[in-house]
Amino acid sequence: MGSVENPDIYTAGLIIIGNEILSGRTHDTNTPWIAERFTQRGVILAEVRVIPDMEDMIVKTVNELREQYDYIFTTGGIGPTHDDITAESIARAFEVSLIKSDDAYQTLVEFYEQDELTPARAKMAMVPQGATLIPNPVSGAPGFQIGNVYVMAGVPRIMQAMFDHVMGHLAVGALVLSHTVACQASESEIADDFALLQERFPDVQMGSYPHYRGGLIGLSLVLRTADRARLDEAAAALDAMLKTYGVQPQAVSLNDPDAA
Amino acid sequence: MGSVENPDIYTAGLIIIGNEILSGRTHDTNTPWIAERFTQRGVILAEVRVIPDMEDMIVKTVNELREQYDYIFTTGGIGPTHDDITAESIARAFEVSLIKSDDAYQTLVEFYEQDELTPARAKMAMVPQGATLIPNPVSGAPGFQIGNVYVMAGVPRIMQAMFDHVMGHLAVGALVLSHTVACQASESEIADDFALLQERFPDVQMGSYPHYRGGLIGLSLVLRTADRARLDEAAAALDAMLKTYGVQPQAVSLNDPDAA
Repeated sequence: MGSVENPDIYTAGLIIIGNEILSGRTHDTNTPWIAERFTQRGVILAEVRVIPDMEDMIVKTVNELREQYDYIFTTGGIGPTHDDITAESIARAFEVSLIKSDDAYQTLVEFYEQDELTPARAKMAMVPQGATLIPNPVSGAPGFQIGNVYVMAGVPRIMQAMFDHVMGHLAVGALVLSHTVACQASESEIADDFALLQERFPDVQMGSYPHYRGGLIGLSLVLRTADRARLDEAAAALDAMLKTYGVQPQAVSLNDPDAA
Repeated sequence: MGSVENPDIYTAGLIIIGNEILSGRTHDTNTPWIAERFTQRGVILAEVRVIPDMEDMIVKTVNELREQYDYIFTTGGIGPTHDDITAESIARAFEVSLIKSDDAYQTLVEFYEQDELTPARAKMAMVPQGATLIPNPVSGAPGFQIGNVYVMAGVPRIMQAMFDHVMGHLAVGALVLSHTVACQASESEIADDFALLQERFPDVQMGSYPHYRGGLIGLSLVLRTADRARLDEAAAALDAMLKTYGVQPQAVSLNDPDAA
């Protein structure tokens, strides 16, 4: 798909479902992992929402975002316990029934080595009508896809296996390459000229990220575009600009998988 | 404030502004820090949104969330560079002008030890009309508050100082206490009885969080409520339930600052 204006751009929304993230109990490591993976694969992560295990909230969020982005991924809430309500919420969002998937049931029967599943285990075989299963090589219980929504487990190891499986089948856009210069300068020192540089290269996204390490202020300047030639031009211009301040780059990195 | 139904509950929305989080370049450590802090202080973090440095997106998100929750906190985008567009976006969200704050200007003049600021530095003195400054003890440039929206820096050290300053002045609700039992059990084994326990204690939020460590499956069962007596009752009932499975708790923790 991609957008009408630019068929080479694919966007995604990510929904992290879980009270435990919002209470601060669990640190969400899925967002940075997924964000990095999308960037490496040519999908632009456009928005992330972290929401509680509440049916109304899941329905509203999924329905809002699936209209706006090419792909929606969710993590969390597909286990056997009573607080796992993602499957039924997604069914409601799509206005379809929640049905027992025979394939999922069979997979679970094999995983648990039982002829009949307990009600809690059987719950994990329930998916929205019309959904396609996403295999779970770690613990049996599958994720699923319905429309442009991909529903994954919250446990990182399982989520990662599901994500990579899905990404193997998705249409994606051009890779966004980045050129990063880390240096010891203050943002406000270089800001005016950096803004002029951005004006000269409106097609290259330019960001400035200050940080403190060991009591020292540091700065990373990041240039991003899918066009390698333009990236190189902008990088050379940034280099020339920093020279006028006598600023020495401490590290320069190019994120381009095709580079030698 | 709090809600009409329950004046003892205060909710917050958190908006993380920054392309660098969405591209996976920077791992957002602000969300878990803030989530934990809110929990410790009696504010329920109801939703987090991570959005790009795009004015329309900031305006839309701020206006949506400030109607829904008691407090909105934002991080990121208040520095001197061209990609720092949070202040002007918030002004637009509130339909007020962006004006020069004399207090902020004076603070910056003192911080940079200059009589006149460069345009980039002066930019950090611009705030929405009617805003109140939030001091920045680390690097001078202040955050600000307008209505129920608190606008903070993205650099963790600065954000944390601003957050604690703000929280010192906010009305908050009752602390939600939690009782956590970690054990070596599978979710699907205990799920049916855990659901029955939840039915017996509808006022206690019960969650189940599986994890894999060193190849072993583990489970944390978490009970949460502001009522200490109910928490203790539910914890005793959970303990009795686990005993019927022969499951030994590996660790039990109570999060109650008032406990001895």
